[in-house]
Amino acid sequence: MRKPLILVTNDDGITAPGIRTLVEEMQALGDVVVVAPDSPQSGMGHAITMSEPLRIHRVSLFSGVEAWECTGTPVDCVKLAKHVVLKGRRIDLCVSGINHGSNASINIIYSGTLSAAMEASLEGIMSIGFSLLDYSFEADFGPCRPYVRHIARQVLESPPAQTRLLNVNIPKRPDIQGIRVCRQADARWIEEFQEARDPRGQPYYWLTGEFVNLDQGRDTDVTALEEGYISVVPSGHDLTVHPAIPELSPLLNRFAHV
Amino acid sequence: MRKPLILVTNDDGITAPGIRTLVEEMQALGDVVVVAPDSPQSGMGHAITMSEPLRIHRVSLFSGVEAWECTGTPVDCVKLAKHVVLKGRRIDLCVSGINHGSNASINIIYSGTLSAAMEASLEGIMSIGFSLLDYSFEADFGPCRPYVRHIARQVLESPPAQTRLLNVNIPKRPDIQGIRVCRQADARWIEEFQEARDPRGQPYYWLTGEFVNLDQGRDTDVTALEEGYISVVPSGHDLTVHPAIPELSPLLNRFAHV
Repeated sequence: MRKPLILVTNDDGITAPGIRTLVEEMQALGDVVVVAPDSPQSGMGHAITMSEPLRIHRVSLFSGVEAWECTGTPVDCVKLAKHVVLKGRRIDLCVSGINHGSNASINIIYSGTLSAAMEASLEGIMSIGFSLLDYSFEADFGPCRPYVRHIARQVLESPPAQTRLLNVNIPKRPDIQGIRVCRQADARWIEEFQEARDPRGQPYYWLTGEFVNLDQGRDTDVTALEEGYISVVPSGHDLTVHPAIPELSPLLNRFAHV
Repeated sequence: MRKPLILVTNDDGITAPGIRTLVEEMQALGDVVVVAPDSPQSGMGHAITMSEPLRIHRVSLFSGVEAWECTGTPVDCVKLAKHVVLKGRRIDLCVSGINHGSNASINIIYSGTLSAAMEASLEGIMSIGFSLLDYSFEADFGPCRPYVRHIARQVLESPPAQTRLLNVNIPKRPDIQGIRVCRQADARWIEEFQEARDPRGQPYYWLTGEFVNLDQGRDTDVTALEEGYISVVPSGHDLTVHPAIPELSPLLNRFAHV
């Protein structure tokens, strides 16, 4: 029987420790091909490269695994993987990460890790974005390894009918309590900018901020993580707020003709 | 009475014709401040700038209007507008665009125009992304002007209770048929890459693609636009596919402890 073909990507760059963990765990489940950015791409969201050409280079980084680095964003990597590197081959699963840092809640919209996975899901490929709540380069991915493999194996064996994208976040602790399938918390960043001056006296600004959970519910990813569980949020790409359609229609449709 | 404070931004850059149209229409409704990218940022999605500092410069581009150009992405512009340029001032409305080209359906997730508006909506600011289905620099924004002003005025006067973000797309035609509040179509891009060779014989790739509507429904933004209407999709940022939670829970939660 044909082994599953698993595409691995990330946004921290192809040399980050997190993607190495993911490659190793996926090798137990199928044939692995890596297509990932040649430099860190955190916070790139769903950016695509339109005004510059893209380049890919074969690299030797993972034992026994075909790997390519790409000059573009995480979303570019997935597009290049599907249409150039793996042209004509069926991709059974796309996994992105393991990100160094949380992509729970609203972070999904800023995250290159999740945007790469979402891009694959738009192509009809079952996809998972994995993130560990530890920004450190020395983050310990050990405790999460069996869970990462379990989640990937389960969706390979029994692909869910109603979603093709899972946002998986993993607490930073040795004693992970289990897995909880849940919804995205309503949270946001309270931002500020650090102002500094260059040698010519001109101001410049560094983005900084604090994550704040505004959600009272206990059934969210943020709560699951606080309680020591891995959060799994089945995710999609329909941003429509359906209940607002009947509310807005009378307000705007009245202006039928100028 | 205090006039409404309206923040104007875009992703085509502060010198694009579309933002000029938007500034002119918003001047009829309130005090306008422009904070927009200093270069084109199409396809930047919800990218934010984390590894470089940001700069802003006051510019004189619009008669009687305070305007700033920013080195970052559209989302960076909104953050800088709120936390640096307009620090402490209440923003009543954020409008982004008018984009040169469609942001209907799935384009919302790639679009810098809509990501800027979404970022403002996350800050609690009522926001609208406007796009005209004409990529040309010489696009005629004339026919849509009264509609743009009408939609902005209506949400300023009667902010909807259930959404803070509208994705407004405008057909390219002189005889716009009216406005239709609707849902995001389920559509996608069928991509391919154009391969070329540099003078050293190395390959490089340009992203290209074709938009395909997969949605059978007639109540979508793509259909409204095809029928000559302006589409207005009330939008949010919860990507959870709620019906998939009960489906996935038994599959994954079984693995309670390793």
